[in-house]
Amino acid sequence: MSAQNLSFVLEGIHKVKFEDRPIPELKDDHDVQINVKYTGICGSDVHYWEHGSIGDFVLTAPMVLGHESAGVISKVGPAVTTLKVGDKVALEPGVPCRRCDPCKDGKYNLCLHMKFAATPPYDGTLAKYYVLPEDYCYKLPENMTIEEGCVMEPLGVAVHVTKQGEVQPGDSVVVFGAGPVGLLCCGVAKAFGATKIVVVELQEARAKFAVENGFATDYHVPEKVDPTVTAKKLIEQFDLGRGADVVIDASGAEPCIHIGIHVVRNGGHYVQGGMGRDYINFPITAACCKEITIRGSFRYGPGDYKLALELISTGQINAKSLITGVVPFNKAEEAFKDVKAGKGIKTLIGGPDVTVA
Amino acid sequence: MSAQNLSFVLEGIHKVKFEDRPIPELKDDHDVQINVKYTGICGSDVHYWEHGSIGDFVLTAPMVLGHESAGVISKVGPAVTTLKVGDKVALEPGVPCRRCDPCKDGKYNLCLHMKFAATPPYDGTLAKYYVLPEDYCYKLPENMTIEEGCVMEPLGVAVHVTKQGEVQPGDSVVVFGAGPVGLLCCGVAKAFGATKIVVVELQEARAKFAVENGFATDYHVPEKVDPTVTAKKLIEQFDLGRGADVVIDASGAEPCIHIGIHVVRNGGHYVQGGMGRDYINFPITAACCKEITIRGSFRYGPGDYKLALELISTGQINAKSLITGVVPFNKAEEAFKDVKAGKGIKTLIGGPDVTVA
Amino acid sequence: MSAQNLSFVLEGIHKVKFEDRPIPELKDDHDVQINVKYTGICGSDVHYWEHGSIGDFVLTAPMVLGHESAGVISKVGPAVTTLKVGDKVALEPGVPCRRCDPCKDGKYNLCLHMKFAATPPYDGTLAKYYVLPEDYCYKLPENMTIEEGCVMEPLGVAVHVTKQGEVQPGDSVVVFGAGPVGLLCCGVAKAFGATKIVVVELQEARAKFAVENGFATDYHVPEKVDPTVTAKKLIEQFDLGRGADVVIDASGAEPCIHIGIHVVRNGGHYVQGGMGRDYINFPITAACCKEITIRGSFRYGPGDYKLALELISTGQINAKSLITGVVPFNKAEEAFKDVKAGKGIKTLIGGPDVTVA
Amino acid sequence: MSAQNLSFVLEGIHKVKFEDRPIPELKDDHDVQINVKYTGICGSDVHYWEHGSIGDFVLTAPMVLGHESAGVISKVGPAVTTLKVGDKVALEPGVPCRRCDPCKDGKYNLCLHMKFAATPPYDGTLAKYYVLPEDYCYKLPENMTIEEGCVMEPLGVAVHVTKQGEVQPGDSVVVFGAGPVGLLCCGVAKAFGATKIVVVELQEARAKFAVENGFATDYHVPEKVDPTVTAKKLIEQFDLGRGADVVIDASGAEPCIHIGIHVVRNGGHYVQGGMGRDYINFPITAACCKEITIRGSFRYGPGDYKLALELISTGQINAKSLITGVVPFNKAEEAFKDVKAGKGIKTLIGGPDVTVA
Repeated sequence: MSAQNLSFVLEGIHKVKFEDRPIPELKDDHDVQINVKYTGICGSDVHYWEHGSIGDFVLTAPMVLGHESAGVISKVGPAVTTLKVGDKVALEPGVPCRRCDPCKDGKYNLCLHMKFAATPPYDGTLAKYYVLPEDYCYKLPENMTIEEGCVMEPLGVAVHVTKQGEVQPGDSVVVFGAGPVGLLCCGVAKAFGATKIVVVELQEARAKFAVENGFATDYHVPEKVDPTVTAKKLIEQFDLGRGADVVIDASGAEPCIHIGIHVVRNGGHYVQGGMGRDYINFPITAACCKEITIRGSFRYGPGDYKLALELISTGQINAKSLITGVVPFNKAEEAFKDVKAGKGIKTLIGGPDVTVA
Repeated sequence: MSAQNLSFVLEGIHKVKFEDRPIPELKDDHDVQINVKYTGICGSDVHYWEHGSIGDFVLTAPMVLGHESAGVISKVGPAVTTLKVGDKVALEPGVPCRRCDPCKDGKYNLCLHMKFAATPPYDGTLAKYYVLPEDYCYKLPENMTIEEGCVMEPLGVAVHVTKQGEVQPGDSVVVFGAGPVGLLCCGVAKAFGATKIVVVELQEARAKFAVENGFATDYHVPEKVDPTVTAKKLIEQFDLGRGADVVIDASGAEPCIHIGIHVVRNGGHYVQGGMGRDYINFPITAACCKEITIRGSFRYGPGDYKLALELISTGQINAKSLITGVVPFNKAEEAFKDVKAGKGIKTLIGGPDVTVA
Repeated sequence: MSAQNLSFVLEGIHKVKFEDRPIPELKDDHDVQINVKYTGICGSDVHYWEHGSIGDFVLTAPMVLGHESAGVISKVGPAVTTLKVGDKVALEPGVPCRRCDPCKDGKYNLCLHMKFAATPPYDGTLAKYYVLPEDYCYKLPENMTIEEGCVMEPLGVAVHVTKQGEVQPGDSVVVFGAGPVGLLCCGVAKAFGATKIVVVELQEARAKFAVENGFATDYHVPEKVDPTVTAKKLIEQFDLGRGADVVIDASGAEPCIHIGIHVVRNGGHYVQGGMGRDYINFPITAACCKEITIRGSFRYGPGDYKLALELISTGQINAKSLITGVVPFNKAEEAFKDVKAGKGIKTLIGGPDVTVA
Repeated sequence: MSAQNLSFVLEGIHKVKFEDRPIPELKDDHDVQINVKYTGICGSDVHYWEHGSIGDFVLTAPMVLGHESAGVISKVGPAVTTLKVGDKVALEPGVPCRRCDPCKDGKYNLCLHMKFAATPPYDGTLAKYYVLPEDYCYKLPENMTIEEGCVMEPLGVAVHVTKQGEVQPGDSVVVFGAGPVGLLCCGVAKAFGATKIVVVELQEARAKFAVENGFATDYHVPEKVDPTVTAKKLIEQFDLGRGADVVIDASGAEPCIHIGIHVVRNGGHYVQGGMGRDYINFPITAACCKEITIRGSFRYGPGDYKLALELISTGQINAKSLITGVVPFNKAEEAFKDVKAGKGIKTLIGGPDVTVA
């Protein structure tokens, strides 16, 4: 692979190719160029590969996939002051316009003109090189590997979800789904001081993994019964009093959402982190009478990546335990198939110039 | 009617009677006894009369109806310091336990042991006398009539809804439903500094009433089209930019809820004030991606009645305009039928010792 | 005055000159150039003229004065979409870096690299032309004059102060100082729904002006007695119960600050808006035991100018009443002397190409 | 000591006696009687013993001292449901009226009619028996000793202080003072997710204790230099960037307060937890320009004791490490003298019927 900027490109549904593209150049004095070393595969990457679209975002031209990346700085613009060539960095893959109202209001994840990697029409990071502004690269401390740096993206998502839930010290938190984001939400809730963190997951092996690796304090494998029955059972089994202080849904599944609304206490917080169908059947009266605060969570905003870095580097989040496989760049498509098949928790793809053992 | 404490009692579905009950006595040194002069009819009273239950609250024994009342203090306990016999007061008809976590947390409306008038098994206020603790009676200033005092209950509801929506000065607010609570939500939003208040209501006469009486700044009568189309139309017609800052649903109707979620801006607030079916079809992905904060609103809590009093007494809310009829106590059942039939906006029933012109 | 860009320049203490400078050009595709028509004189302009510095900001080179300006768009960059040549606009005179943490956190007024007009080393707006990014210009609606546009700067300050105080509907607010910012804080508090707004001011004429022009509801001229005595008097005279919900100090004077801390209720808010000496004697134990939230307020941030525009254009703030004089550009120095002498409330200086009647 | 209810009574400055008082009886169906087993000595107890007053609270009649207590339930009222005779409990020693505005607003620590142990005219807990409402007793889990239960009072104070500072995960926190409350503030900040906790303390032994026992991550012993110099040094030495996110003063000392205001970042939080002189010299302009949120903290409110219990029982706070001495009841006066002399960190006094080894 002597190509200058080998890239993994999605052309259409289940149609990918390796393409040698021009090396991206700095467009602004504050920009840096990163030599991408590892990239995690996200459910959204798989979704574009399978369906060609997510909601209103539709693939209309070939697009490089990938956005959970870390690498090494290979070039810096003249105004860059905090990074230098050779620094290991994690990439925050969405660059907002910095000028619209959400950007100014401290909610840049809701930017009206966001350029997000691997969201049409913007190319992703499964390439040898990528360009970002300095302030969207996070220098990794010596005690963190580049591979761990890739976990900062889903961890940023989990940090944002947990903030949306206003998790407080001493809180009880119930998390639905033990995929990477669900697991990380459990871990972040613990870092926020939650003392009881129950993960609810159909696959017992994943549920156990959550507890054994210190993400959750307890787990529950739900049976197919009425959601109010499961909610009552959770409250009794885990001594949740008048209900969980915070519920996080990282599954997107309707039955989980129903249980979640019934298991949260009155005046509590419910966060919709996972995405499934556009419309679902919803227990609106229960939500209303219990005065639940329900919030969506979308990507990550100010401070989320910074906290993600802090949580990994101080050992509060065991990022390594989530990385269950690393494959070479030329096996990217096979890796997508494995993720689709539910193998492992988080699979990384090595960059084009990385030799994977 | 020389009875000592004539009361309007619901015995079962569509089965009411007038009964002379013992005069309620003070149970605590802080209690006062009120000679009830007027009581507004609320949708929930009508619902119990028609269905015998609301959600989990089921009529199992005869119960006095009514909870939107005002009257005159007729007796005070020895520890009472702020009220005296003869004072005109509005009644806040739910007394919390003051000891549970929600009570201490500043959310007594979510009290686990609430005693609420005309919610089984607690008797309501459609009687000659009622007893409350001093701090749940609000002395009316000289410039307010007892009849206006009855409007404080639905206004307390509207204040609470509007607070749940975190309406800020300069905000645009869309309110669905122009019944008493919807109208009052419009008015409260205006008092909170909202500068654009659009009421959406199927009955054009009610919608116009909202604007003509200064509650809303604009109105819209929706057509039966796709909710996203109506949402887009509202945004264009009323220049809502990236959507309304706050949406309040005071209708409980599924189509309104759909329009509401689509018309609120990203990062905005949506309050479910109205109650309809227990489960509805809900645009969960839109709510999630737009990071809307969705809150239920249940009754009223600390400061809500106090603010309601302030809003009426300073002329910010025109309470009188909502009172479209006053009937004598012995016509209570007919009044219920009229409210059920949609006649007028707010009907009051005079107390047993009140002569209605 | 056929100069291309006549400017009013401060060279040193009490040393000013009129200088013809090059016309400033657009530096960014999003920039616009404004032909400045009017500029209000601010206390800080006068302070630089008198002392050559404010705190750490020291004049080390000649600097154009002025930052409360409005004018007409004279040139637009290629990326500008919301403004066109000829539009009347108010100028928000500080441009943040958009990249530092405060900028991203929604607090651009605390930007670490702020470029603020007439704060050394950045030139101000007392010139024929000024350049700003599009999003720091606010198009004036037809019902607003350019003169009123100049009031948006102090009003932005007042909006920010009032937000820092978390003024809620129904609140009682005590404001110290009836200069332009104090008066505007009163008006903004009213727009936020405060129902009792007491202005405390030594000059009775100014205090009366506040009430007569609808800014405050009441006024008090304090005597030289112990601050706790005055606080008690204010509470009794204006029926403030356990104290004012919010206190705003727009005076910077130590006695006012003392009265303010003693007059605010426990759990209430106190905002330090005015600046005086760097260190003062402060009743720290009272502040602590009453659990007051004390906040500083510095310039204006996201949404403040937008709300200022809304408040003037909807008639909630009477901006015209504050403009007590307009002088031609060549009389700028005399105007500074008059402001220093306490003449009028807000004096505007016409732009170099404006004929002042 | 066969007395029925031996009590340690303060009669005047430095004048104490042991007195056998009548056993306090239940006054309400929700009350419980506690046989007090241990009581910690607090600085305020020592202050009353030395000065006879604190602020407006003046000893005018003999008063039992003590308020940091835990014991065993000895009697329960008929309405009590969660406690039974023999239960080990910690005592929350202030009972609010439950009826005033602060009580309803979720701020019962600001209750206008608070009855607080050992605050004139209310007797304290240094007696064999004490009576409280059920909801102000906290049942200790099996893994907690009664001695540890006494630490819940200062920990409740520290929880409240830390909440007032809005400490967030990832925050840097600087705490002034390493007395019991300062140490516990450090520990609570850690439980809230703060990753850098610097304690500033003149006595190096105490400062080291804070770090060695896991309360703080770092310590600093300040020199007698200009506060801005120390602030700068702290920022450099501990890599605090633009300043500490949160500063907690648990010293009440003017120089600490000065350093604190200068070391907190712009937009950060400063909490005044310690109390010293009523008036101090204060850097008001710095506080204002940096838009610091300054809050007092007074006692503890809703949820604080519950969280204190959680923090000790889950091992997040090492309560045992603070208890440096336990003395028998009849040595109470000597214990006060030792505390005054600065011996140990927290001294407990055994109850009248407790044998201290």
